[in-house]
Amino acid sequence: MSEPRGLGDKQAEETGRSDTSILPRRLSEITHWDIVTDVAIVGYGGAGACAAIEAKDAGAEVIIFETASGGGGSTALSCGEIYYGGNGGTPIQKATGFEDSSENMYNYLMASGGPNADERKIRAYVDGSLDHYHWIVDKGLRYKPSFVATREIIQLTDDCLIYSGNEKAWPYRDKALPCPRGHKGRIEGDNGGPLLWQALSGAVEQRGIKVQYDSRVLALIADEHNEVSGVAIRHDMKEYNVRATRGVVLCTGGFAMNQKMLKKFAPTLAKGNAPLGNPNDNGSGIRMGMALGASVINMTEGFISMAFYPPGRNSSGIFVNANGQRYVNEDSYHTRVAYYSMLQPDSRCYLILHASDDFKPPKFFNPPIAGTGFTLEELEAELKIPAGALAQTMEYYNRHAAKGEDPFFHKASEWLEPIEPPYVALDCSPSGGGYVTYFTLGGLETAPSGEVLNVRGEVIPGLYTAGRTASGVPCSTEHYASGLSVGDATFSGRMAGMAAAGRIPTEASKGCRIV
Amino acid sequence: MSEPRGLGDKQAEETGRSDTSILPRRLSEITHWDIVTDVAIVGYGGAGACAAIEAKDAGAEVIIFETASGGGGSTALSCGEIYYGGNGGTPIQKATGFEDSSENMYNYLMASGGPNADERKIRAYVDGSLDHYHWIVDKGLRYKPSFVATREIIQLTDDCLIYSGNEKAWPYRDKALPCPRGHKGRIEGDNGGPLLWQALSGAVEQRGIKVQYDSRVLALIADEHNEVSGVAIRHDMKEYNVRATRGVVLCTGGFAMNQKMLKKFAPTLAKGNAPLGNPNDNGSGIRMGMALGASVINMTEGFISMAFYPPGRNSSGIFVNANGQRYVNEDSYHTRVAYYSMLQPDSRCYLILHASDDFKPPKFFNPPIAGTGFTLEELEAELKIPAGALAQTMEYYNRHAAKGEDPFFHKASEWLEPIEPPYVALDCSPSGGGYVTYFTLGGLETAPSGEVLNVRGEVIPGLYTAGRTASGVPCSTEHYASGLSVGDATFSGRMAGMAAAGRIPTEASKGCRIV
Ligand SMILES: Cc1cc2nc3c(=O)[nH]c(=O)nc-3n(C[C@H](O)[C@H](O)[C@H](O)COP(=O)(O)OP(=O)(O)OC[C@H]3O[C@@H](n4cnc5c(N)ncnc54)[C@H](O)[C@@H]3O)c2cc1C
Ligand SMILES: Cc1cc2nc3c(=O)[nH]c(=O)nc-3n(C[C@H](O)[C@H](O)[C@H](O)COP(=O)(O)OP(=O)(O)OC[C@H]3O[C@@H](n4cnc5c(N)ncnc54)[C@H](O)[C@@H]3O)c2cc1C
Repeated sequence: MSEPRGLGDKQAEETGRSDTSILPRRLSEITHWDIVTDVAIVGYGGAGACAAIEAKDAGAEVIIFETASGGGGSTALSCGEIYYGGNGGTPIQKATGFEDSSENMYNYLMASGGPNADERKIRAYVDGSLDHYHWIVDKGLRYKPSFVATREIIQLTDDCLIYSGNEKAWPYRDKALPCPRGHKGRIEGDNGGPLLWQALSGAVEQRGIKVQYDSRVLALIADEHNEVSGVAIRHDMKEYNVRATRGVVLCTGGFAMNQKMLKKFAPTLAKGNAPLGNPNDNGSGIRMGMALGASVINMTEGFISMAFYPPGRNSSGIFVNANGQRYVNEDSYHTRVAYYSMLQPDSRCYLILHASDDFKPPKFFNPPIAGTGFTLEELEAELKIPAGALAQTMEYYNRHAAKGEDPFFHKASEWLEPIEPPYVALDCSPSGGGYVTYFTLGGLETAPSGEVLNVRGEVIPGLYTAGRTASGVPCSTEHYASGLSVGDATFSGRMAGMAAAGRIPTEASKGCRIV
Repeated sequence: MSEPRGLGDKQAEETGRSDTSILPRRLSEITHWDIVTDVAIVGYGGAGACAAIEAKDAGAEVIIFETASGGGGSTALSCGEIYYGGNGGTPIQKATGFEDSSENMYNYLMASGGPNADERKIRAYVDGSLDHYHWIVDKGLRYKPSFVATREIIQLTDDCLIYSGNEKAWPYRDKALPCPRGHKGRIEGDNGGPLLWQALSGAVEQRGIKVQYDSRVLALIADEHNEVSGVAIRHDMKEYNVRATRGVVLCTGGFAMNQKMLKKFAPTLAKGNAPLGNPNDNGSGIRMGMALGASVINMTEGFISMAFYPPGRNSSGIFVNANGQRYVNEDSYHTRVAYYSMLQPDSRCYLILHASDDFKPPKFFNPPIAGTGFTLEELEAELKIPAGALAQTMEYYNRHAAKGEDPFFHKASEWLEPIEPPYVALDCSPSGGGYVTYFTLGGLETAPSGEVLNVRGEVIPGLYTAGRTASGVPCSTEHYASGLSVGDATFSGRMAGMAAAGRIPTEASKGCRIV
């Protein structure tokens, strides 16, 4: 096999020669193997790197196949926020004065999974969370023992700990004691992802794990009972058959970049206008699994955001729909606000704020000003909200806010103050010019070990998956929290790597094998 | 093969011997065929019967395999309402003074599919609708040329035509000229399904089509490229291999009765408390398809209902959530109202009505009275709605209703009148004792021909599906209309039967075959 070349695979795509099927190739038709390894990892992002490290550390021979000319995927593009906690607290939580019990974190994550919560995965994630923290730190990532108390989408300083989800918001605060669990690496700006990637890729290199770039995995190779024995890859315009004696781990990310799949499987996310991810987030791994009869779950779910804060005081505004009705507590995590916003008639949503002299629009993705007014009547007219409707909402809200109450949505009292004229309304809706960004959380159904399950709940032998190719701990748009995706991708990557290498007990070994 | 026996398959289930996998059996391992036919139809309900008739009429030899001891499935349990129209109007539409253009019906159905609408299927359904009417009538079903103007869930007289969806409700009425398209057979009471079944099963018998009862289809038989060549069935505790030389048509219905699948794939429907269907609506056909690598779409979607009318005048009440906010036009079809109700905080939903001297609760599934009051303050307290919130909603609603206006949701003026004290509130929520019933609309992805597609959009040769095993014309909870499911099951059954018999051009023959 020749050395990595920059354009091999890309060329193939662009010359229209990328006409291969993602359907499984049959073992009986494979005449020779070009490469043989114990574990083949597909995709060199967060999940893939962690799977590779664990599989290697478990004694397996590992090769990573990556379609791009470099590693990192969406993980390296991300803020690198990771959701850790429980077990009495991480060193950072402890240093900043937070105690965090596993039961408390478990309760929060169960709420954060909504009706789809996977209890076994959440239990494993919580139990392993402190260990995971140390494992990542051991790879070289540094965290500063500091806490950011302001309401941020992401810490832009080199500080670490933050409330990264709905912990303090109703109704979550009644289900679990609020505790901050978002951890960002010690670096200025939105650079936590590159920093995390430096650590993970460093650990991969240090172990001498082979990474084959510009190598797109085209299809799984499986026998007629769908037991997976390897993958077919394309590199430099030629195809190669890879035998993976212990297992294949699909770590190809989600499908935010695939409009066809979004429209079919996640129409609510498709209401957004800005996919968040790398160009290879096209669902290839999910489709390879489906083509083999794997089950896919939570396909409608995702992260979706209208970043209306910071400044935190924007949470003192109210979100209203086309009828001037409130519909969410504005101190919720931005994904929860965006989720409810997308459900409103025509997905219209306005953030109504007091237009103070020093009014500051949201820091990110500044939504257009849809109206201003000294009176609510003026504003209603500009926003085409039925006359009197916004005034009524505001009267009720202000009357209770003055008493520190929000009878509808129980916004925390720190954000409750009457909204005085003059007013400004920001149009946060996708149709009104708001920037609504998303990535996907649905994917292949797996056991906590990363073993892929078919629709009957049976393990597909030889096939593992992790990160956004699987549906994992984060599986609900309504309840998502920052740090869960990278947290889950790295954690589930480790599990799948260990399982594929044969180090942790698997569902298959528990007698759940196809008969 | 012995004659049908009542308990064969049932026994197998109950003695725990039903341990067979729905995974495909491989052709290479089939040593003999017990039965050979051209087309094997799996499931003898509406879709199965229609598929069988068309396949037979196209000259194919057909056998139907049905797990129950009799035919009909959910179709025979249903009200038999069918959604027909377009093409200038059905004879019933014309006789009752309604003209219906195909473009108009197409526009309505596109709205009724929401973002998931399948344009090609809708086009075929509309273009074929008048022909489908005649085809059904030709099988012996009689319709009375009469129109029911009142607001009903289902006609309980022997009358035929009704507005069976959201045609007259905002915003649909602005997208397509309202026209009634729900047709029920000429029989008193809720007996349209049995009457329809009499016609369809009569046509099956008349053609001498063989129906093998007590024969559960266990799995598809396919070669290693997933080309389907037959099915494995269990009859009288023995297994048989069936070769279908032209094709297998899965017509096994949906998965409303499978709690595991509901929880995994349709959590919103699972909020309901009463599945609607027959016990074999367990998703077996969908799972067989998935296990073969078929694509599944719209799995979260379904029919869901709180039957709060008749009497129609209940639509003059208002639905409010736990915060006393309105959220839907109450003259919407009951599925739309239930859909929005389930999205409210904790799915709490109350129907507030004027408690007149002759107050009549809804005719079906009478929801409990959650509160009454001479004042709204009293009612708020009883319903635990924040003080003043309901009063505010009511004041705004009444003020506009008096002028025949509904600025929020544009309820039609015929239902707009101020709601005067005393008040009664019905708790329609599942947790409050309301009866919330559902069936599923998600399923295998197909071409309009009924050919099953894999995730790459390619045809799986030899496999067809119809009715609720497929995702068809009805594919959106929010926008569903009565008559679409039986309409689609019978229509798509016919398409699949013709395609399997080789009579209509298929995707496969258009060069879309797996390569
Ligand atoms: C700007 C941004 C900020 C974010 N911030 C955060 C955050 O702070 N915290 C958080 O939890 N989440 C965040 N997310 C989301 C999070 O980064 C991702 O969901 C997560 O990192 C995905 O990890 P992964 O390992 O599953 O996929 P990736 O890291 O994307 O890795 C997948 C890899 O597979 C490769 N690949 C794809 N198909 C093939 C194929 N067929 N053959 C070979 N290789 C293939 C891709 O090229 C890629 O390298 C953010 C995302 C973005 C884009
Ligand atoms: C009370 C009620 C009223 C309704 N009213 C209406 C209405 O008026 N209009 C409307 O449009 N919709 C209505 N619906 C919904 C509609 O009836 C169904 O969605 C539709 O009829 C389904 O048709 P089908 O052919 O896909 O499935 P079915 O008619 O249910 O047929 C499926 C058949 O497959 C069999 N089967 C399942 N698994 C296997 C297997 N593995 N092997 C062999 N056989 C198997 C089943 O026993 C069954 O006989 C109603 C439903 C109910 C329950």
